[in-house]
Amino acid sequence: MNILITAGGTSEKIDNVRSITNHSTGRLGKIIGETFLAKGHFVTYVTTPRAVRPTNETNLTLIEIETTKELESALLDQFEHQTFDGIIHSMAVSDFTTETTLSEETFIEKLATTLTKDDALSDLTKLTEALYLSLDEIGKTIQQEKKIPSGTDRLLLFLKKNPKIIAMLREKQPQAVLVGFKLLVGVSTEELIQVGQTILAKNNCDFVLANDLEKIKGDQHQGILIDTQGQTETAQTKNEIAQLIVSKVEEKWRMQ
Amino acid sequence: MNILITAGGTSEKIDNVRSITNHSTGRLGKIIGETFLAKGHFVTYVTTPRAVRPTNETNLTLIEIETTKELESALLDQFEHQTFDGIIHSMAVSDFTTETTLSEETFIEKLATTLTKDDALSDLTKLTEALYLSLDEIGKTIQQEKKIPSGTDRLLLFLKKNPKIIAMLREKQPQAVLVGFKLLVGVSTEELIQVGQTILAKNNCDFVLANDLEKIKGDQHQGILIDTQGQTETAQTKNEIAQLIVSKVEEKWRMQ
Repeated sequence: MNILITAGGTSEKIDNVRSITNHSTGRLGKIIGETFLAKGHFVTYVTTPRAVRPTNETNLTLIEIETTKELESALLDQFEHQTFDGIIHSMAVSDFTTETTLSEETFIEKLATTLTKDDALSDLTKLTEALYLSLDEIGKTIQQEKKIPSGTDRLLLFLKKNPKIIAMLREKQPQAVLVGFKLLVGVSTEELIQVGQTILAKNNCDFVLANDLEKIKGDQHQGILIDTQGQTETAQTKNEIAQLIVSKVEEKWRMQ
Repeated sequence: MNILITAGGTSEKIDNVRSITNHSTGRLGKIIGETFLAKGHFVTYVTTPRAVRPTNETNLTLIEIETTKELESALLDQFEHQTFDGIIHSMAVSDFTTETTLSEETFIEKLATTLTKDDALSDLTKLTEALYLSLDEIGKTIQQEKKIPSGTDRLLLFLKKNPKIIAMLREKQPQAVLVGFKLLVGVSTEELIQVGQTILAKNNCDFVLANDLEKIKGDQHQGILIDTQGQTETAQTKNEIAQLIVSKVEEKWRMQ
């Protein structure tokens, strides 16, 4: 099979020296990649600079990206000349990217200036409407201050929505067995499964691996693999998760 | 001499899986540490999880921190039982930490509700005042939404000022030879030196190492060491910078 794996975590630049980082060691992705390779499959592995990755030299193509935008371009580029049989989308992708950063002084100055042009501010509906317009204008048009004045007590960071990668994966590679991932923090098993099922249905995945940050400690890693029938299987280590995903993807592919 | 070195870059948590990270490989700090150790000095080395660090086993105490707040506590803790002769503060410390994160919907709802309670919104001064109060109340009192609604198009991240570590270093260890660092991006040598001198005077440093991100490529690393007399010396590699700092700190200490 020709397999695509995304792993690691994206970063979104705030400026030249700072960024918003989605933490992910990439260790689960590495083991999944190695398990597919060990079974003789071809793997295109898209990852981020700080994440660990498989080190095999045969049948492995490595691609490195940093931001969600770069991930999107790299994938679209692959899809122009490759068709995948299985896609394991384990990368922690940032839902939002930076739009602009302003000191509270600049922010309020812009906001106050636009608002006082309006003369119906005592009405809650009209004020709300005016605030949406101002915020949108500030976010889209006000350039980030070159040098953030270090004297300010508060900064406002505007973040805007990133493209949804998983939706694009399904759209561009409808034939692939698609495995999505969902990481939650400190929820019940019921909630974890329920959220996983929602993600699966919404993104038209074949499987979703749902896991909880509080149940990941070193190689101990509880993961619940959910399928389209609502069946679940639970693994307790990264290695078990990898074995489970590989065998389920192989099986599903054979049945298609 | 008893030397304190800070190196690497702090991170400020946004939530359990994301943070704002100051990028720093820690490579310059590592070489400075190793140079001090090679000359027989004692080194307390405070660094961050992803940064490289000296690996010597004698005369070296390693301390790991993540956030600026943790850095402050770790240093105050050291100062209770150690006095330092030299302090090399090369860590990229975040000026701001996260206060709260809100969807634009929640933000505007809170803002509109407070503003409509005010009846003098057509006046720019009064509106500005009202906006400051609202923003402050939102930042300080509104809890970050547990689960950021992924349906929102825009998030607002509130950041508030972190304590100034360098000021605290000078205050708590007045006897130490203090070396501050300033990293700028794409400025002229004149501006770099001028900003370095301002930082030196403001924080009562003995030296400031001023450098420009655009003049750092691998081991090539231009650094300008500025002293209290306004004298400057320029080094071209990380190793030269380390040699320069160690000899200047030793010299200054002998003269005290």
